Amino acid sequence: MKNTATLLITCPDQKGIVAAIADFLFQHNANILHADQHQDSENNLFLMRVEWDLSDSDVNADNFNENFATIANRFNMHWQLKLSQRRPRMAIMVSQYDHCLADLLHRHQSGELACDIPLIISNHLDSKRLAEFYNIPFHHVVVSKENKIEAENRQFELFEAYEVDFIVLARYMQILSPEFVKRYPQRIINIHHSFLPAFIGARPYHRAFERGVKLIGATSHYVTEVLDEGPIIEQDIDRISHRDQVEDLIQKGRDLERIVLSRAVRWHVENRILLYANKTVIFD
Amino acid sequence: MKNTATLLITCPDQKGIVAAIADFLFQHNANILHADQHQDSENNLFLMRVEWDLSDSDVNADNFNENFATIANRFNMHWQLKLSQRRPRMAIMVSQYDHCLADLLHRHQSGELACDIPLIISNHLDSKRLAEFYNIPFHHVVVSKENKIEAENRQFELFEAYEVDFIVLARYMQILSPEFVKRYPQRIINIHHSFLPAFIGARPYHRAFERGVKLIGATSHYVTEVLDEGPIIEQDIDRISHRDQVEDLIQKGRDLERIVLSRAVRWHVENRILLYANKTVIFD
Amino acid sequence: MKNTATLLITCPDQKGIVAAIADFLFQHNANILHADQHQDSENNLFLMRVEWDLSDSDVNADNFNENFATIANRFNMHWQLKLSQRRPRMAIMVSQYDHCLADLLHRHQSGELACDIPLIISNHLDSKRLAEFYNIPFHHVVVSKENKIEAENRQFELFEAYEVDFIVLARYMQILSPEFVKRYPQRIINIHHSFLPAFIGARPYHRAFERGVKLIGATSHYVTEVLDEGPIIEQDIDRISHRDQVEDLIQKGRDLERIVLSRAVRWHVENRILLYANKTVIFD
Amino acid sequence: MKNTATLLITCPDQKGIVAAIADFLFQHNANILHADQHQDSENNLFLMRVEWDLSDSDVNADNFNENFATIANRFNMHWQLKLSQRRPRMAIMVSQYDHCLADLLHRHQSGELACDIPLIISNHLDSKRLAEFYNIPFHHVVVSKENKIEAENRQFELFEAYEVDFIVLARYMQILSPEFVKRYPQRIINIHHSFLPAFIGARPYHRAFERGVKLIGATSHYVTEVLDEGPIIEQDIDRISHRDQVEDLIQKGRDLERIVLSRAVRWHVENRILLYANKTVIFD
Repeated sequence: MKNTATLLITCPDQKGIVAAIADFLFQHNANILHADQHQDSENNLFLMRVEWDLSDSDVNADNFNENFATIANRFNMHWQLKLSQRRPRMAIMVSQYDHCLADLLHRHQSGELACDIPLIISNHLDSKRLAEFYNIPFHHVVVSKENKIEAENRQFELFEAYEVDFIVLARYMQILSPEFVKRYPQRIINIHHSFLPAFIGARPYHRAFERGVKLIGATSHYVTEVLDEGPIIEQDIDRISHRDQVEDLIQKGRDLERIVLSRAVRWHVENRILLYANKTVIFD
Repeated sequence: MKNTATLLITCPDQKGIVAAIADFLFQHNANILHADQHQDSENNLFLMRVEWDLSDSDVNADNFNENFATIANRFNMHWQLKLSQRRPRMAIMVSQYDHCLADLLHRHQSGELACDIPLIISNHLDSKRLAEFYNIPFHHVVVSKENKIEAENRQFELFEAYEVDFIVLARYMQILSPEFVKRYPQRIINIHHSFLPAFIGARPYHRAFERGVKLIGATSHYVTEVLDEGPIIEQDIDRISHRDQVEDLIQKGRDLERIVLSRAVRWHVENRILLYANKTVIFD
Repeated sequence: MKNTATLLITCPDQKGIVAAIADFLFQHNANILHADQHQDSENNLFLMRVEWDLSDSDVNADNFNENFATIANRFNMHWQLKLSQRRPRMAIMVSQYDHCLADLLHRHQSGELACDIPLIISNHLDSKRLAEFYNIPFHHVVVSKENKIEAENRQFELFEAYEVDFIVLARYMQILSPEFVKRYPQRIINIHHSFLPAFIGARPYHRAFERGVKLIGATSHYVTEVLDEGPIIEQDIDRISHRDQVEDLIQKGRDLERIVLSRAVRWHVENRILLYANKTVIFD
Repeated sequence: MKNTATLLITCPDQKGIVAAIADFLFQHNANILHADQHQDSENNLFLMRVEWDLSDSDVNADNFNENFATIANRFNMHWQLKLSQRRPRMAIMVSQYDHCLADLLHRHQSGELACDIPLIISNHLDSKRLAEFYNIPFHHVVVSKENKIEAENRQFELFEAYEVDFIVLARYMQILSPEFVKRYPQRIINIHHSFLPAFIGARPYHRAFERGVKLIGATSHYVTEVLDEGPIIEQDIDRISHRDQVEDLIQKGRDLERIVLSRAVRWHVENRILLYANKTVIFD
């Protein structure tokens, strides 16, 4: 099992940032495994991801903060340090369609996703057997117009009890309340079954069919207050033709949704995503 | 040079249509080269394209109408007969960006597009040399807010003088008047630089950049009265990342625009497109 | 549940074939749902797939042979009639990697694959739990150099006992004997993890990595006597870069393998594939 | 016009390289515009590309060597410094098919390719008019079995007279002699019309058609002594079906060839390519 640290940095762009970080890591005997950076000249922003081997470095989780403070202050940095041995804990929420859930669980079992899955929450019982097969606790939380607040409070309790770091909406067909969204900023990942910003909202495959498009898509994004307007993490498309009925769009779309969501989850888990200006930088 | 006829049919769906057409062609000794059909059960429509060799058939352009009338009436058909030896005449309209124009002209010269190009109309002079290189008459028609009606009348005169069958807007940056559009129904092909229905209207690459999408697209469609709402003929996309600035989107987009427009033009020229319910059927 | 018949025809090309078939179906009051045809001029072959609704037609499985014989003889046809209500029975063979198996089982459960899966055979025990989850009989048949003939005989017994129509090698890592292949002509579907004909044989991802290709692929094909040389049903690719190690190729490849194999299986099950000259025609 | 320097480095991997380079550039007041690096752990190699603004830096082309020598020696670096204001000079060689040539010339004129094109050499006269349209000197060098050495000597003279930096074979259908290849190591870019390593050698579209593949491809690579075995720069594919004849493959392939070659040329011109172990690293 690998033992690395990943540092994610956002700060105003200026000369000397890379030199300062590279020198800091060199002084602490860190072997850099990957480093990537991005400058956004329009917003004068510098964004960086650097990952190093912890095995022979004298900088570690306990003393990093203290050691790095001088540099962080000098360049006015927002930074996060992530350790590969502290696996993030992902809750999955799902309704009746279980193709994304089944896909995530199989990938997790195969070792593709370096996270823990402490629980699955559903407003239906369809996925219970699947959760049991993979030995993941399954919680049935019924949601209706009347009990929405109550239901979300129950969900919050579960997230806390299971120490959840982030939440994946794997075709969860309920709209979250603004309170829910505010509670987990940049920590809720959704899959929308269209290439956003086309076909925002309900029934995108039906509307794609009516419009007569030649491509369908899927989009994974962080959830923000405005429906389907959050920062896009990943998108992909498939080709359709006049022979494809709505059912065919739905079927082809399932493959897109699986793949697009799983990429977004993997990048999130591997700390490859930085956000700014309602956009994502993907360090791949 | 091939000598074929292509029959395009739309009619209410019922049993016996294919049998009637196939029998008709067999009775007239036609060798069917390609046949393809589509049923739209929702609208109870039957659509068909059939192409046959004219060389040893006794049915031809002159007597087809008369011979086929019984069948056409029996099934209440809309039909068109197209002859490969009567090449459609395409006018190209262009503004300053000439990449689609250059691409169409080179493909035409290579034999990819079985049409004639009797003229190019532009509201700028930039493409004049290119038109001359390919020996295509070039007409400069300046368009302004004030002279729009006048300018379009001049364009209509040119289309008539050159006996134009259809018009391709190869990045022509003027909005056509409703009169213009009505005059050439299903005979004006546009290229829009986004995957419609996302980013309808102006500056789609800038808006795609601001939204932070991970894919850009291009869409070729027939022009109708409502801007960017006409039947879609073809779409394609390319992948972008946070490293791509607006200029990169524009550059990558040029390749998409060229390819998407050229496919749409080819299918139109080869009589592979049927329209219904604001959609296209592409018989490829 | 739909109740249709699908007729697949291969015969020498000549005039009147379509007319004869369409007329036959019209005489028997068949409502054609889909019809598609292909002419191969080089080999002077005509290939056709036609599917019709059985509900109000007086031609059915029992009397079709008798009724159609005149036409079949006249045009020297090879033909097969397939009924949607007689679902083909698919055996899946798998070794240790279970991603294709898990994918096929989930698609089957979702209703994407209109076949029955009477059994899974593996030379390992890894997939036993998965088979049980989906309630599919699982048979463990150990294969070694010494017992190969014996093991295949045991497999043949199982195929017969379970009345298997065709066999899918879902990453089954044993080479079948020529006797096995001969026994199930055009009835064994394999997934090879490269874009054939590149990287025929073992360890294609390792060889792709060494060659420094920028794309990896997967190919689904019918198994013939010569390894990886059978008729190709479907292929697809994914983009890789210098950042991808062999492990990344293997991981990305799993998605390709799943999708490419599932398409091939679906087309086979829906009787959309005709073979000639070591090629496939896919009527989609 | 931008005024930047790009440094390309290859050296054995060890700690402190990035720190040394970043510190060096910071000391010389260089504003880093882009930096990207790659570690190949298998070969213990470190590869880096860094581009900075020359406008306010005191390190420049004249004094770089001297200033950088200490670092270069310390880490045993192979390095190249490229200046954006010294545009590389590209010769294009072409035979009869001019689609890649026309594409490169149009892109060059549009400003997509930051190089100069001092000359075009062809063994045919077909492209002469096109060269003249773009005001590029055109040289006709006939090549036959008998005069091959002579012809290549004439080509070498032209490359020297026009001070050519690298050579693009834009569908040049002659095999270069080993002497030619040795003379321009990593400076000859070819486009091969298949996804290598499939269909090495002649007539790849014909062989793809015969094999019945479902995808065709194109590959751009540096030319080495062994035919079609050089380091791959870029590849792409397009989907084909049983409806596509060899002519259709050739036509679809033209679009692939254009795009794949133009990407390779752009990356070469922008100094984004590093070679090692018969592979390319593309810093994009």
